[in-house]
Amino acid sequence: MKDTPTETLTTAKGTFADGLRDHLPAAAFRDLEPRYLEEPRGRWAGTDGLLLAPATTEEVAIIIKAAQQARVAVIPYGGGTGLVGGQVSSDLPAPVILSLERLNKVRNVDPVENAMTVEAGVILQQAQEVAEEAGRLFPLTIASQGSARIGGILSTNAGGVNVLRYGNARDLCLGVEAVLPDGSILQGLSPLRKNNTGYDLRHLLIGAEGTLGVITAATLKLMPRPVRTGAAMMAIRDPAAALDLLNMARDRIGEGVSAFELIGRMGLDFLAETMPEVRLPLGWPEWSVLIDLGLGASGDPAAALEGLFEAAFDAGLVTDGVIAQSEGQRHDFWTVRESIPEANRRIGSISSHDISVPIASIPDFIRDGTGVIAKIGDFRINCFGHVGDGNLHYNVFPMPGRSRSDHDDQRDAIKTAVHDLTHSYGGSVSAEHGVGRLKVGDLETYVDPAKLAAMRAIKAALDPAGIMNPGAVLRRAG
Amino acid sequence: MKDTPTETLTTAKGTFADGLRDHLPAAAFRDLEPRYLEEPRGRWAGTDGLLLAPATTEEVAIIIKAAQQARVAVIPYGGGTGLVGGQVSSDLPAPVILSLERLNKVRNVDPVENAMTVEAGVILQQAQEVAEEAGRLFPLTIASQGSARIGGILSTNAGGVNVLRYGNARDLCLGVEAVLPDGSILQGLSPLRKNNTGYDLRHLLIGAEGTLGVITAATLKLMPRPVRTGAAMMAIRDPAAALDLLNMARDRIGEGVSAFELIGRMGLDFLAETMPEVRLPLGWPEWSVLIDLGLGASGDPAAALEGLFEAAFDAGLVTDGVIAQSEGQRHDFWTVRESIPEANRRIGSISSHDISVPIASIPDFIRDGTGVIAKIGDFRINCFGHVGDGNLHYNVFPMPGRSRSDHDDQRDAIKTAVHDLTHSYGGSVSAEHGVGRLKVGDLETYVDPAKLAAMRAIKAALDPAGIMNPGAVLRRAG
Repeated sequence: MKDTPTETLTTAKGTFADGLRDHLPAAAFRDLEPRYLEEPRGRWAGTDGLLLAPATTEEVAIIIKAAQQARVAVIPYGGGTGLVGGQVSSDLPAPVILSLERLNKVRNVDPVENAMTVEAGVILQQAQEVAEEAGRLFPLTIASQGSARIGGILSTNAGGVNVLRYGNARDLCLGVEAVLPDGSILQGLSPLRKNNTGYDLRHLLIGAEGTLGVITAATLKLMPRPVRTGAAMMAIRDPAAALDLLNMARDRIGEGVSAFELIGRMGLDFLAETMPEVRLPLGWPEWSVLIDLGLGASGDPAAALEGLFEAAFDAGLVTDGVIAQSEGQRHDFWTVRESIPEANRRIGSISSHDISVPIASIPDFIRDGTGVIAKIGDFRINCFGHVGDGNLHYNVFPMPGRSRSDHDDQRDAIKTAVHDLTHSYGGSVSAEHGVGRLKVGDLETYVDPAKLAAMRAIKAALDPAGIMNPGAVLRRAG
Repeated sequence: MKDTPTETLTTAKGTFADGLRDHLPAAAFRDLEPRYLEEPRGRWAGTDGLLLAPATTEEVAIIIKAAQQARVAVIPYGGGTGLVGGQVSSDLPAPVILSLERLNKVRNVDPVENAMTVEAGVILQQAQEVAEEAGRLFPLTIASQGSARIGGILSTNAGGVNVLRYGNARDLCLGVEAVLPDGSILQGLSPLRKNNTGYDLRHLLIGAEGTLGVITAATLKLMPRPVRTGAAMMAIRDPAAALDLLNMARDRIGEGVSAFELIGRMGLDFLAETMPEVRLPLGWPEWSVLIDLGLGASGDPAAALEGLFEAAFDAGLVTDGVIAQSEGQRHDFWTVRESIPEANRRIGSISSHDISVPIASIPDFIRDGTGVIAKIGDFRINCFGHVGDGNLHYNVFPMPGRSRSDHDDQRDAIKTAVHDLTHSYGGSVSAEHGVGRLKVGDLETYVDPAKLAAMRAIKAALDPAGIMNPGAVLRRAG
């Protein structure tokens, strides 16, 4: 199998840009505002580029075909919210920065079909709203939903809090339209639930982070809107009890369990320290969970949660609990969970990790994690996240009175220790954020060599000139 | 992008087989019984081959590596139940017929993780039973589950009656181990729910029908077992009412709707004619549906179905209905549905079609189908299937007193008419059975050229010698 492409790339400025002006409307050429060269964590900064914002799939195809011929790099750009640097490159000749922001039509919403087709530039929150207007639910829910766009969400296979019930972005996509690296248009939009006609290119493009083509539109699954919702916070005996409680909940309530979030004591301490206005319904239990239910019209969430609490209390899994008596109270519970990332930012983490481990090994992982971090020094660990998916946000902070910059020399050791431990448990060092440019080395370290070789062969087959998002996911050869 | 491989293949008999004897245990060499050269529909018959039945993944890798070096074709063989000839070839130099029957261990079942890892040769029904013993559900349910094996089920992305609720084989697989065409072992077994580390090779291998490698084991999702089940048969106003009723059911009952099957009058007539012992609870309604529920401990299926019936009756969607009052009665309802394929066999179809269309277009498709078939001649149409997935079994039969052989000259015209109509509705000419050798031409006719070109490029990149199941899915070039 062949290695990644090595051909020399050329600049998008000058001749290439001038040539495109004959084939694209003037509106597709936009000023390169600084935001297109930045990313939220400030680790990468682009230096130059040609910003193009096509309004149709055909315009995308014109750009890609021209870039293919001229050997110009193309960096697809969605909402700019990615956390792994997939949307910014500084080590290339000025690339095309291909913003999907004008390719933003909702093409179709069909509540009978339970599907909608939206273009890549549609913002997630807008997609959620359009589904709601049709009496349906588009369940993907992530912190950046007010600015993240569907194309980027699919390209990174975004996750979030409702993966337990509804799956991640991949699982919610029925079909994609994309421009492949040779400029051809893959006509894969379809609401079909069963379609076994050849290789599943949809799933290959989803999660490829723009390295195998540009997703231009997608047909997304819609779900029934849960009409009766409920939530509870329960203090649990220990992390192992969270797993038993989750299974008990799913055995009793089935798929109605929409979210099951683990909260460690440290997160509550951080809230008390930085956001004292957030009310903590259970005080400061060492470990607690937030359980969210969404049932059909015939369901009774409060009764289901009361029954669950009683059974779990009798089994010694939970020690305390509170069940939301109103939608307002449910909202308050979620405020606790959703404020933790902001509290983390105010404290200032030394190193944060987007990892997943097999669900059953979460308790051991948490125990061992404390050990490996303690060997490096004195730190505070805030471990929280989506237990139902095995997806932990495992963040390491300085002790009180110290700052993250005091530990710059330990950051790499912490990251390596957490990633090594994750890997030893068969976990993933990129659970929901993707690889981007941040984790290219991690991929090489932790991912199966046969997988990497096959990825390189596929990349070389579909993008022999290596123009699509060069340096993301796979290292550029040469 | 390159075309499919054209290199000349050589025979597995003689030198190749002799050379392998030094590297494989004697037990891996088996007699080539006739069943390995047959398939259920009798359209293809193999002529020769070297039957190998490895017991470990490493043995599979030894075989594939040797086949790669010697340019010997490899045809993976699971349960032999495939309906599209993916498991039999007659136009190759004697291939290796790689039976997975001895690679049949259940490696791990973990009810806390809600996952199990099984080898490719495990029979589906055994996987279901192992899950049940652990208090969990492996929900994939197909007619051939007593002999179909997990490797084949994944390679063809099998579907069945529970796709509405649980998805098809693809959706139930968390990770795969596979031997790639170069003999390397892809170590992709994993119960992780969130893992965004590079291209999703799992989904590329699933549905590739053995043309990109051999799946040797898989980690499968387990679900909570519904503890309270129920079923109803309802006579509906017309096919359009089925869609409204399905959405009404899902809005009221959520994901608890496990199956929703459409039954046309013709199927009931066929039952009366060929299997009069099957009791028909509603008589002979023109159109009816079978609704199956599986709820958690707190659910009440009978009450939910009664409420649904009343609401649907008031809305004019249903005209009659019966709700199972016992597990025995639920079983009787299913007997009606599951006997229809046998009744079809006894009548003898001229042409049967495994198609899907967008759910919302099912009523129009059924209306138009009657029209296009009538233009060809006088026939009986039995249309039934998984409405919730848009997956119809659309079968055309001779009129009473005539036999299928009277219509041999019309078979192609019927098939083309049904496939053309399906395609015009954006449907799929292979919904759940796959492409195999039967539908290679259909793929070329109906599938997006950009998709076909990308498939060929991927095939050439991963299997440059073209040894893996040559002639299935993609035509051999040259």
